[in-house]
Amino acid sequence: MSDAGAIEVFDNPHPDRDYIIEHVADEFTSVCPMTGHPDYASVVVRYVPEASCIELKSLKLYYQSFRNRGIFYEDATNEMLNHLVAACAPRWMEIETQWTGRGGIRSVITARHDS
Amino acid sequence: MSDAGAIEVFDNPHPDRDYIIEHVADEFTSVCPMTGHPDYASVVVRYVPEASCIELKSLKLYYQSFRNRGIFYEDATNEMLNHLVAACAPRWMEIETQWTGRGGIRSVITARHDS
Amino acid sequence: MSDAGAIEVFDNPHPDRDYIIEHVADEFTSVCPMTGHPDYASVVVRYVPEASCIELKSLKLYYQSFRNRGIFYEDATNEMLNHLVAACAPRWMEIETQWTGRGGIRSVITARHDS
Amino acid sequence: MSDAGAIEVFDNPHPDRDYIIEHVADEFTSVCPMTGHPDYASVVVRYVPEASCIELKSLKLYYQSFRNRGIFYEDATNEMLNHLVAACAPRWMEIETQWTGRGGIRSVITARHDS
Amino acid sequence: MSDAGAIEVFDNPHPDRDYIIEHVADEFTSVCPMTGHPDYASVVVRYVPEASCIELKSLKLYYQSFRNRGIFYEDATNEMLNHLVAACAPRWMEIETQWTGRGGIRSVITARHDS
Amino acid sequence: MSDAGAIEVFDNPHPDRDYIIEHVADEFTSVCPMTGHPDYASVVVRYVPEASCIELKSLKLYYQSFRNRGIFYEDATNEMLNHLVAACAPRWMEIETQWTGRGGIRSVITARHDS
Amino acid sequence: MSDAGAIEVFDNPHPDRDYIIEHVADEFTSVCPMTGHPDYASVVVRYVPEASCIELKSLKLYYQSFRNRGIFYEDATNEMLNHLVAACAPRWMEIETQWTGRGGIRSVITARHDS
Amino acid sequence: MSDAGAIEVFDNPHPDRDYIIEHVADEFTSVCPMTGHPDYASVVVRYVPEASCIELKSLKLYYQSFRNRGIFYEDATNEMLNHLVAACAPRWMEIETQWTGRGGIRSVITARHDS
Amino acid sequence: MSDAGAIEVFDNPHPDRDYIIEHVADEFTSVCPMTGHPDYASVVVRYVPEASCIELKSLKLYYQSFRNRGIFYEDATNEMLNHLVAACAPRWMEIETQWTGRGGIRSVITARHDS
Amino acid sequence: MSDAGAIEVFDNPHPDRDYIIEHVADEFTSVCPMTGHPDYASVVVRYVPEASCIELKSLKLYYQSFRNRGIFYEDATNEMLNHLVAACAPRWMEIETQWTGRGGIRSVITARHDS
Repeated sequence: MSDAGAIEVFDNPHPDRDYIIEHVADEFTSVCPMTGHPDYASVVVRYVPEASCIELKSLKLYYQSFRNRGIFYEDATNEMLNHLVAACAPRWMEIETQWTGRGGIRSVITARHDS
Repeated sequence: MSDAGAIEVFDNPHPDRDYIIEHVADEFTSVCPMTGHPDYASVVVRYVPEASCIELKSLKLYYQSFRNRGIFYEDATNEMLNHLVAACAPRWMEIETQWTGRGGIRSVITARHDS
Repeated sequence: MSDAGAIEVFDNPHPDRDYIIEHVADEFTSVCPMTGHPDYASVVVRYVPEASCIELKSLKLYYQSFRNRGIFYEDATNEMLNHLVAACAPRWMEIETQWTGRGGIRSVITARHDS
Repeated sequence: MSDAGAIEVFDNPHPDRDYIIEHVADEFTSVCPMTGHPDYASVVVRYVPEASCIELKSLKLYYQSFRNRGIFYEDATNEMLNHLVAACAPRWMEIETQWTGRGGIRSVITARHDS
Repeated sequence: MSDAGAIEVFDNPHPDRDYIIEHVADEFTSVCPMTGHPDYASVVVRYVPEASCIELKSLKLYYQSFRNRGIFYEDATNEMLNHLVAACAPRWMEIETQWTGRGGIRSVITARHDS
Repeated sequence: MSDAGAIEVFDNPHPDRDYIIEHVADEFTSVCPMTGHPDYASVVVRYVPEASCIELKSLKLYYQSFRNRGIFYEDATNEMLNHLVAACAPRWMEIETQWTGRGGIRSVITARHDS
Repeated sequence: MSDAGAIEVFDNPHPDRDYIIEHVADEFTSVCPMTGHPDYASVVVRYVPEASCIELKSLKLYYQSFRNRGIFYEDATNEMLNHLVAACAPRWMEIETQWTGRGGIRSVITARHDS
Repeated sequence: MSDAGAIEVFDNPHPDRDYIIEHVADEFTSVCPMTGHPDYASVVVRYVPEASCIELKSLKLYYQSFRNRGIFYEDATNEMLNHLVAACAPRWMEIETQWTGRGGIRSVITARHDS
Repeated sequence: MSDAGAIEVFDNPHPDRDYIIEHVADEFTSVCPMTGHPDYASVVVRYVPEASCIELKSLKLYYQSFRNRGIFYEDATNEMLNHLVAACAPRWMEIETQWTGRGGIRSVITARHDS
Repeated sequence: MSDAGAIEVFDNPHPDRDYIIEHVADEFTSVCPMTGHPDYASVVVRYVPEASCIELKSLKLYYQSFRNRGIFYEDATNEMLNHLVAACAPRWMEIETQWTGRGGIRSVITARHDS
């Protein structure tokens, strides 16, 4: 199972200012729960930090925890948003997952959290 | 005939949150009702799910049901919107069909449904 | 002379809904009235139909009627908008003409009609 | 010196309608007043004409008058806006100069005039 | 240490008008404080000048002062914004740092100052 | 069945010279004989004509005859080469079919005929 | 009729050396002799000059002489090669015409002359 | 372990002719044997079939067998070539693996088999 | 006048090995001797050094000496090749000038020197 | 100083076959020995291994050893080739350094070693 606790944070060095952080991971992969075939996606996270910023190496490892999990696009996107919000309690956060084609159809799922 | 009933759905795993799902199919084809020549399009569907999400394999088969139908751009776009709304009753849905050129003219048709 | 009467229309198959139709013609050509040299443009028409939709083959022929006419960019753009509005009485229409360079300067003219 | 008087105009053929004219010149060059080295830019002018439209050949010659002038990016952009406004008295005008890199830094200057 | 005092300015030649200046530096590099490996970024600064404009050569040298400093993405972005605001007291300023990938994740940090 | 006899030709207007003709059709579609799902391809034909050149409208119709045929990539490519060679007896001909992805794998088949 | 005599030449300034001249015209248009619809092409000429070089303004006017002529792709390409060879007697010349799509098929014709 | 025996073949429908088959898989992933982090690659196979052609679905499954194996770039490339040659005994085969960046370095490995 | 003597050189640090040096200058400009209008080009020089390498700053200044000279494409290309060969006596040199469009025609001139 | 001894190797897993390995590093930087300003390059190494393959992490660190060295393009390229050949004794090796622009001129240096 993936786990919000695996996502490490560090102190926001400029909490007095609203500013936007975006991380783009082009090499996300999970498994389709119906067919067992791998799915591939780019995962984009954008957020305005409050007290904490997401540490990049732990984010990479968190994404890798999906490598052999069977999970739907819609579920993965919302679960990641919930985990990342739990880990860093941002002022605002948005996640966008861009899935490569399966059966000739490409998909993008976008979810948002407002504190 | 194409049929809204052929579009299968599954339960929205996160109905508590408004989020956007986009599916892009680059390999749609139908037939021009005037000349009998094939038309080609990319079909983009964007929606915010209520209780149900569209299942991808049935969406692919639904699109394939247009393969040998004679239908105008404008009619196909609106019919697909009506069928997809009927199938999953979304909070909001938009469809955009991007047709490759015929006689040197490329076309894009965009229609929207608000619940 | 070009003629709004040459533009044929067909009945809007979904007049109950506001939706947008866009036609892009990459092979428009007319003649510069000052130098006699040919001008080349892409012509983009976007509109929300009321009772009528523009028929594509007649639109292609209408554009071809400019092939040997001497006309300025600004005049051609507005004349085409007037003709297309007269032909199909849309709820809203926009035309954008994108002219390839002459003397190292490329131009884009955009005009809009609200009913 | 460059001169607003060198910019010729012609009567706006459709003064009854607000529409946008954009001219993009990719081959602008002037000289850096500090180093004496040439600067290169694309110059984009967008405006809504009132009574007059800018004639393209005179615009090209006007731009060429900067070829051997020493002038800063910020000054050239505002001077051109002042000259073009003086020449055609538009309802609205915007100028954007996009300068190729010097010392590894590319620059874009954007200024606007409202009547 | 990097130093706001190293950023030189010159008098805004058109202080009567609000206009936007953008400088894009594609060759910024600093060092990751955790791993000691180099980081690479494009740095985009956009601002509306008040009395002073940023001089380009001093901006280049200011960016070079980060070459061997260990600093986090989030900290570098906010520090540069603070230094640039201190140097030229703009009406408005925005900085965007676009970092190339590390561990398969690319990042963009965006901060803004309103006077 | 597709049929070489459906491909019309016209007299090579310059048989005294070896020259190359290339036709690229981006909208080829056939059906996978194993799954029944549609396949999509671009088909490129290059040849040096002897006495006859391929007529374009009949080539388009010939390609359309594959629309509902079940046929493998490798077979379709070689069959088309055989039919086109039979139709125009070229000095040299090459055919290249570029198939969009299926199961995440894109394919290109290239076959050549020398007289 | 188009006419080789309309193509002007000037003395090759460096006849002692074999070097290659390439001219690319993106705005060629002629008329399909079967349908009467316009055809559009980019025309590329490459040659090694002997005593004469092709003058660019006359080349532009020569291309314009095809504007309202009905002529096949294959014929236009070879006729232009014959005319250009007659005009400047090059050591070597190649012409490539790249035609935009008609009926979904794009074409390229390439012919070569060796002295 | 990956296994050449998992790769299925079908009879070459045109063994009388040398022709080239290319399959491009953009979603290959394996694991770095030193760090345990995932590697991502596009895998391109080109071959001239003798008696047998590679079946696409089994090729996809064969590639998936690398998903959780630790293996170096150079080893994976040569092992896949050996397996594919063993499976279909081609007249000629080439494999090219294009690996996304790790530590800022992208890699391409190319190996070839001649029968 | 431009002058080969203005091109400075430095000692080839590795004269024992044949290797290729390429310099691409995207901001070359001269003047058309017939119309007086400016011409713009990218200039590419490729060479294998013998005893000397071309110094980059002097090359930039050499190119700037063409800024206000009236000269044909063909002449400028060959003159630059002669000057650069005279300055550094290379084992082999090639120059390619890529001129932006005039009258809708873009040109590329390529000349080569073998020692 | 940079040092060939810092480049680690591992045993070629398939020494029986000639195959090509290419590594592309987009983030190379050194310092211009004349101006003290940083230079940026992409470095491409291609080789056919004999007994040894270059280990990627040590290659990254080797490149980083140039970060604060003053060295000319031509010298850096040849020195790296000498070091890499010394480290792995390849059957064949080629290095290509692509330097971003300085004074408006981009450069590419290519050197090759045959055993």
